[in-house]
Amino acid sequence: MAKQKKAPRPKAITPKGFRDYFGAEVSRRTEMLRQIAEVYHRYGFDALETSAVETVEALGKFLPDVDRPNEGVFAWQEDDGDWLALRYDMTAPLARVYAQFRNDLPTPYRRYAMGPVWRNEKPGPGRFRQFYQCDADTVGSASMAADAEICAMLADTLEGVGIPRGDYVVRVNNRKILNGVMEVAGLAGDESEAARGIVLRAIDKLDRLGLEGVRALLGKGREDESGDFTVGAGLGDAQADVVMGFMQAKRASATDTIATLKDLVPGSATGMAGVDELEQIGALLDAGGYDASRIDLDPSVVRGLGYYTGPVYEAELTFEIKDEKGRPRQFGAVAGGGRYDDLVKRFTGQEVPATGVSIGVDRLLAALAAKGRISDEAQGPVVVTVMDRDRMADYQAMVAELRNAGIRAEVYLGNPKNFGNQLKYADKRASPVAIIEGGDEHDKGVVQIKDLILGAQIAETATLEEWKDRPSQVEVPRADLVATVREMLSR
Amino acid sequence: MAKQKKAPRPKAITPKGFRDYFGAEVSRRTEMLRQIAEVYHRYGFDALETSAVETVEALGKFLPDVDRPNEGVFAWQEDDGDWLALRYDMTAPLARVYAQFRNDLPTPYRRYAMGPVWRNEKPGPGRFRQFYQCDADTVGSASMAADAEICAMLADTLEGVGIPRGDYVVRVNNRKILNGVMEVAGLAGDESEAARGIVLRAIDKLDRLGLEGVRALLGKGREDESGDFTVGAGLGDAQADVVMGFMQAKRASATDTIATLKDLVPGSATGMAGVDELEQIGALLDAGGYDASRIDLDPSVVRGLGYYTGPVYEAELTFEIKDEKGRPRQFGAVAGGGRYDDLVKRFTGQEVPATGVSIGVDRLLAALAAKGRISDEAQGPVVVTVMDRDRMADYQAMVAELRNAGIRAEVYLGNPKNFGNQLKYADKRASPVAIIEGGDEHDKGVVQIKDLILGAQIAETATLEEWKDRPSQVEVPRADLVATVREMLSR
Repeated sequence: MAKQKKAPRPKAITPKGFRDYFGAEVSRRTEMLRQIAEVYHRYGFDALETSAVETVEALGKFLPDVDRPNEGVFAWQEDDGDWLALRYDMTAPLARVYAQFRNDLPTPYRRYAMGPVWRNEKPGPGRFRQFYQCDADTVGSASMAADAEICAMLADTLEGVGIPRGDYVVRVNNRKILNGVMEVAGLAGDESEAARGIVLRAIDKLDRLGLEGVRALLGKGREDESGDFTVGAGLGDAQADVVMGFMQAKRASATDTIATLKDLVPGSATGMAGVDELEQIGALLDAGGYDASRIDLDPSVVRGLGYYTGPVYEAELTFEIKDEKGRPRQFGAVAGGGRYDDLVKRFTGQEVPATGVSIGVDRLLAALAAKGRISDEAQGPVVVTVMDRDRMADYQAMVAELRNAGIRAEVYLGNPKNFGNQLKYADKRASPVAIIEGGDEHDKGVVQIKDLILGAQIAETATLEEWKDRPSQVEVPRADLVATVREMLSR
Repeated sequence: MAKQKKAPRPKAITPKGFRDYFGAEVSRRTEMLRQIAEVYHRYGFDALETSAVETVEALGKFLPDVDRPNEGVFAWQEDDGDWLALRYDMTAPLARVYAQFRNDLPTPYRRYAMGPVWRNEKPGPGRFRQFYQCDADTVGSASMAADAEICAMLADTLEGVGIPRGDYVVRVNNRKILNGVMEVAGLAGDESEAARGIVLRAIDKLDRLGLEGVRALLGKGREDESGDFTVGAGLGDAQADVVMGFMQAKRASATDTIATLKDLVPGSATGMAGVDELEQIGALLDAGGYDASRIDLDPSVVRGLGYYTGPVYEAELTFEIKDEKGRPRQFGAVAGGGRYDDLVKRFTGQEVPATGVSIGVDRLLAALAAKGRISDEAQGPVVVTVMDRDRMADYQAMVAELRNAGIRAEVYLGNPKNFGNQLKYADKRASPVAIIEGGDEHDKGVVQIKDLILGAQIAETATLEEWKDRPSQVEVPRADLVATVREMLSR
């Protein structure tokens, strides 16, 4: 490296809005992604890993006249004048890849993609500028069987990562029904575009605002607890009633829900097509053995995004967790998606139907942690302490034996002078077991094995006499090292 | 998405120098990273995943007066004036993290990191601007046991990913010995810095240039086959002989190699310290059961990078493969590393010893593919064809049964009108088996199961009569679907 003698010392900081992940945080996510990929693969989906970098034009951002195109994306200009940017989701790269390789890819193309995406947004608490997405999409199929399949896969995936049946529900709806409802309510025209947007977002907030809150947003608007006023869609009572009826159209059985929906969109071809699609999805899932306790038709699901054109679906965890203040609350949505038909068209001019889901991996991990299904504790290594630095080769041999037996183990590599530091190190590493072999032990052909987990328990409760007995430490013949450690670890 | 009515269609292209990875390319790499992580974890190394983005100053690039700091890195300026960039390796982020979190991290800190890195360089054939690195480093230990451990881990890792003993060798050397050799050759002064650099690079090219080529570069220089002349280090014969002696100091036993090296650096404290360190590493590996067929002391290994300060090591695959022209050649190095002591110092002013290795995952994958140890073929799904689009629910039920039995399967989701297209699709998907259930089969309660692999074999060799017999297709009761498919797949 070139010497920079006069350069000031750089600051050692993670850039604002980014974070680092350590140890078990990484391993647990990797394991979850593996579990998800296993299910996706079984469903016939193929992995796709695009480059993190795309041309700005492929991402669908357009150069403003003067400034850099970094609204929302991290972008930079190449020497040849082209603008490149980090992907902000997995869908735009999929559209680019499908358009680029459509003659080589199978059609329909089922693909999954997992990895980080980047958002150039103001960071906030728990809101990062780099995070993981885990998507599965089917491109090139207009069949409702494609949507039904993704819903089934979503249910199987949740079970695959450890959410038992009964603790989740995948809820399905269809945007065309909502569009039909808008028609019936007289909100189909261009002049009502803004109102339709407000209606969509209001329904999407049902969980948080309740029926009354949504009703207020459909009308004049709503004042929240802080006194802020959100302007409503301005619907009259009759119009709002139609929308409210739609949102609450869920009945005990899918058949009854479908019948209720049909009554809501009389005369709307779009609405009836949506009901028909929803009915088809229900029938397909039924045939696949997915009953309403796992995948349910629910008209209150709309998904906030504007670009969905047909079926929409989301997965919700139904168990309660405690929030920061100890109050019980539903965990909520961990995945969502739907059908979008004009993404590839941007590139090719041809409309290509597509449907897909995105799983919030970090939220799923948080859910499993909240339910105690994954441990917060990292599995630390067995630490072989160094009593005599001239006998490092002996300690290295112990470690090699342990590792060869599949046991996570390491020799202390710091300065061995202070033995207390070695035990502090073992503590910091969350080591279950420490090995000690001083000169005396060496001469006698034995090793001391210290059960640090038991030791910590005793330290909390034991009397001085019990402590002195040191029942958490045993002396065994050197030859029994591996067997004894294995037995301790299996407790 | 905002409408951009007048915008021209974007081009669907991967940005120059980047590439996309499809299907098995992704899955195989994921699997290899999992295998590597398993070994690293067993050795007590903890995962670390830093953000892909770092401040430019943390990466050690310095802002030129006027231009953007994108020499070698992809960088951009934030609205607040800060420059950010994509990481170009895993070592700079490790240094930043260790400096930032040193009070919370255990010392020594063993960490591994896997993921893409980005280089803003001119792309070339097989040379991409985004590629994977897979590193393991120990920060905060000056002990030779740390280096020995990484060499042992490297050997275990190669075996863990499927390179058998005998097909690889990890070779170890020490830069201090080379520095001692430079002293003895009278090249220790500041005025010889350029010459030392040439010597280092010349030795590093031994594999490619042979002894004669290296010897030429130590002296006046070397003309290559194309007629290009590389200027040499300008060493006199006596000086060059010392360097050549060092490079060829490997003997049949480690003991003899060490003795030979000692003779080469008489009177050089640095050189003798290097020999002593190398001897220590040899003894530690010996104690761990790693003999010279797996890890060998070899003075011809120097590693090209300037920043190594002590032990250096590399892993080489020793089997021959055929190059593009069918000529046999050694596969060569797949991993390398060494000790570097001043990386963290940039941030804190304190010198922190560190040693680590980087594995070239893509090269390892290529090696396994070249040896036929991993298949180039993706495992395609069983395809359930659609003979009657009104009975999609029946086909979906078949697929669900197969998936529930752990068999990768999918229903054809394209337009089912043309049956030939469905079989073409199955072919493109590398499907081993296709399921056919038309109206006749449905009425009889049977399904047709087509063995596509056997079918393809027959198609290549069979006569028309054999072909007509269609032995690759069987009719079985619907209830036997899963069992029959499973049996076909296990052939």
